[in-house]
Amino acid sequence: MGLVVQKYGGSSVADAEGIKRVAKRIVDTKKDGHQVVVVVSAMGDTTDELIDLAEQVSPMPAGREFDMLLTAGERISMALLAMAIKNLGHEAQSFTGSQAGVITDSVHNKARIIDVTPGRIRTALDEGNIAIVAGFQGVSQDKKDITTLGRGGSDTTAVALAAALDAEVCEIYTDVDGVFTADPRVVKKAKKIDWISFEDMLELAASGSKVLLHRCVEYARRYNIPIHVRSSFSGLQGTWVSNEPQGDRKVEQAIISGVAHDTSEAKITVVGVPDKPGEAAAIFRAVADAEINIDMIVQNVSAAATGLTDISFTLPKAEGRKAIDELEKAKTAIGFDSLRYDDQIGKISLVGAGMKTNPGVTADFFKALSDAGVNIELISTSEIRISVVTRADDVNEAVRAVHTAFGLDSDSDEAVVYGGTGR
Amino acid sequence: MGLVVQKYGGSSVADAEGIKRVAKRIVDTKKDGHQVVVVVSAMGDTTDELIDLAEQVSPMPAGREFDMLLTAGERISMALLAMAIKNLGHEAQSFTGSQAGVITDSVHNKARIIDVTPGRIRTALDEGNIAIVAGFQGVSQDKKDITTLGRGGSDTTAVALAAALDAEVCEIYTDVDGVFTADPRVVKKAKKIDWISFEDMLELAASGSKVLLHRCVEYARRYNIPIHVRSSFSGLQGTWVSNEPQGDRKVEQAIISGVAHDTSEAKITVVGVPDKPGEAAAIFRAVADAEINIDMIVQNVSAAATGLTDISFTLPKAEGRKAIDELEKAKTAIGFDSLRYDDQIGKISLVGAGMKTNPGVTADFFKALSDAGVNIELISTSEIRISVVTRADDVNEAVRAVHTAFGLDSDSDEAVVYGGTGR
Repeated sequence: MGLVVQKYGGSSVADAEGIKRVAKRIVDTKKDGHQVVVVVSAMGDTTDELIDLAEQVSPMPAGREFDMLLTAGERISMALLAMAIKNLGHEAQSFTGSQAGVITDSVHNKARIIDVTPGRIRTALDEGNIAIVAGFQGVSQDKKDITTLGRGGSDTTAVALAAALDAEVCEIYTDVDGVFTADPRVVKKAKKIDWISFEDMLELAASGSKVLLHRCVEYARRYNIPIHVRSSFSGLQGTWVSNEPQGDRKVEQAIISGVAHDTSEAKITVVGVPDKPGEAAAIFRAVADAEINIDMIVQNVSAAATGLTDISFTLPKAEGRKAIDELEKAKTAIGFDSLRYDDQIGKISLVGAGMKTNPGVTADFFKALSDAGVNIELISTSEIRISVVTRADDVNEAVRAVHTAFGLDSDSDEAVVYGGTGR
Repeated sequence: MGLVVQKYGGSSVADAEGIKRVAKRIVDTKKDGHQVVVVVSAMGDTTDELIDLAEQVSPMPAGREFDMLLTAGERISMALLAMAIKNLGHEAQSFTGSQAGVITDSVHNKARIIDVTPGRIRTALDEGNIAIVAGFQGVSQDKKDITTLGRGGSDTTAVALAAALDAEVCEIYTDVDGVFTADPRVVKKAKKIDWISFEDMLELAASGSKVLLHRCVEYARRYNIPIHVRSSFSGLQGTWVSNEPQGDRKVEQAIISGVAHDTSEAKITVVGVPDKPGEAAAIFRAVADAEINIDMIVQNVSAAATGLTDISFTLPKAEGRKAIDELEKAKTAIGFDSLRYDDQIGKISLVGAGMKTNPGVTADFFKALSDAGVNIELISTSEIRISVVTRADDVNEAVRAVHTAFGLDSDSDEAVVYGGTGR
């Protein structure tokens, strides 16, 4: 019976009832003989309310003071959770990110963890306490200022603490039952995945699956910390994310883990780029200098007559304006004709390590899309993923078609078999 | 132009508008050439809301986790205030009690400041910042746990920082114009006091005046930090509390500073106590062991026939139940007949250093009460204060009568003169 790190999100501790329910679950884990460290997010809408207050006093709140403000949210939830546990007759102590030894860089609002020194947590555990730690926050190494980790930061706190404390497992409690083969809001027949490898989970996260963020899975993979994503509302087993399936259950790695989709991106096409060395580099240098993350890149075949080509790439819609501005500024230097901006796109990705050894997957994927009448605008692939960009309106239909075509629907016992069938 | 510490209470920063108004006032002080340290309380009802949440998860929240919870309140207000100041084009940084070096003992919920090490505040000031510090909170010396200072703790934080930073003045901003000669809600003609000595202010605070707490004034007296109590809503001069009147204005010390009243106490009478050495000690040891603060004590003259006497004392109503329980437990050991509990009492106190040299004050005080038809139940005096206990119903009338009798009413130019008149 080793150490378990549990993380509860804001929806699990949205009110006093939720906090009491979570407290009971934590105490049950402790009664099972585990040492328990709990990472908790701010209650329900607290963070949004604090952001709203900040915007009322300052048009562009950011930086050090914004982090100081937001971290009040976890301070409230963690103290209440510790009280609720004590009320059940168990000892609990809450710790801020700083007290828990979560050391970060100094990039306010999206700091990165650079070290975890959980001395106080270890002491609290050794004294028989359940340790409650504020998610999403840390303290900067150089200035000792309070920092926040940005979106999904609490999951990352949990995995980082699990690594530093050599935990058996990091349990991520959320309001869904686990990771599904597709977004259940789009695909009614989506199935919960019992086990998925770090690699496939990373690709799903990068392709639009919201359950776990890429950064958290990456951290877990680096330190080989098994993650168990499960619901705080049911007692059911959720999805295990790890190198190998856990325990006795022998779970075969599925050929296809799931279908992810993403409609948060836009596409920029740089039209009329001279087809000579250095052009693409100049374009992406301009975008990178503005700290814009780009996703897919496709360069068209050059038209022989003109010696000009088009380069398209996708990026978060929120950064579209900035990217256009940066490229316009560099227009003369780079020497292209014009820019096209399109935010009515969607991306569908098929993820699964099995596709490495099953060459028919790509063809079947395209056929499924074609049968559903979905037009493909861009394609990008990795060893274990195929992604396409389509019209945003086609995304839901495309996801359902692909999900069915690969035998992922929950009422289907028929798995797609590759190789033998010649498909 | 030296260093000014300003403290703003919860009603001054109750909403975004309040925070912006306070930010402007702070910036004005900075523009006048001062270094400015601001101590801020939690916004409006935040603390009550947090207490309410705590009671929802635990019937008796207290101790370490309760302090962790409550300190979220100042974290929010201080970060917002720093943002609002930055929005006015000035540099500001917020600091928790711990970051500001407010070191306390480990008594959660009512910790005492044992040291202030404001190194980070000094650095922030030297770099041109306005420093915003969370009131009401500190960090314990031994365990490094977050503590709160209890009622009025933010005022004490401000005075303690003013002392540690050798400030010119500690300005306490509140929602009233200063300290008055009586509670203006009871006495319409109460006057604002321009200057009052530490000693008289201490007696007023101990006698029920709510504007400044005893503990904060005591701290200021010990380190000789002038306090300026003033309104954050007007720009008016308020009340200076110090050893000597400030600046050019020569203010004569008034014979009588003011009339305070208090209806938060109850009276316990221990009936039939054997009139022999050690009895009173046994009674008050029993009460003191339960950490109950008693105020006035009166022992009746013993009845010669029985050799028994009665001992009465006052204490906060909130502690009445506990005191009765403790005394009942010790009844056989002490050997008294019975206990009487009365929570329908009020206390009226007349405060002024001038009464030391004006023997007529006491007689005039009793005459004023008598003329108003107020019956006196207990009397206690110090060198510069007379207090009486009456029926609670008589308190307001008694305060008005005494205020008028001593020429404190604002439309009266006639000061009461002692000595010469033979009164």
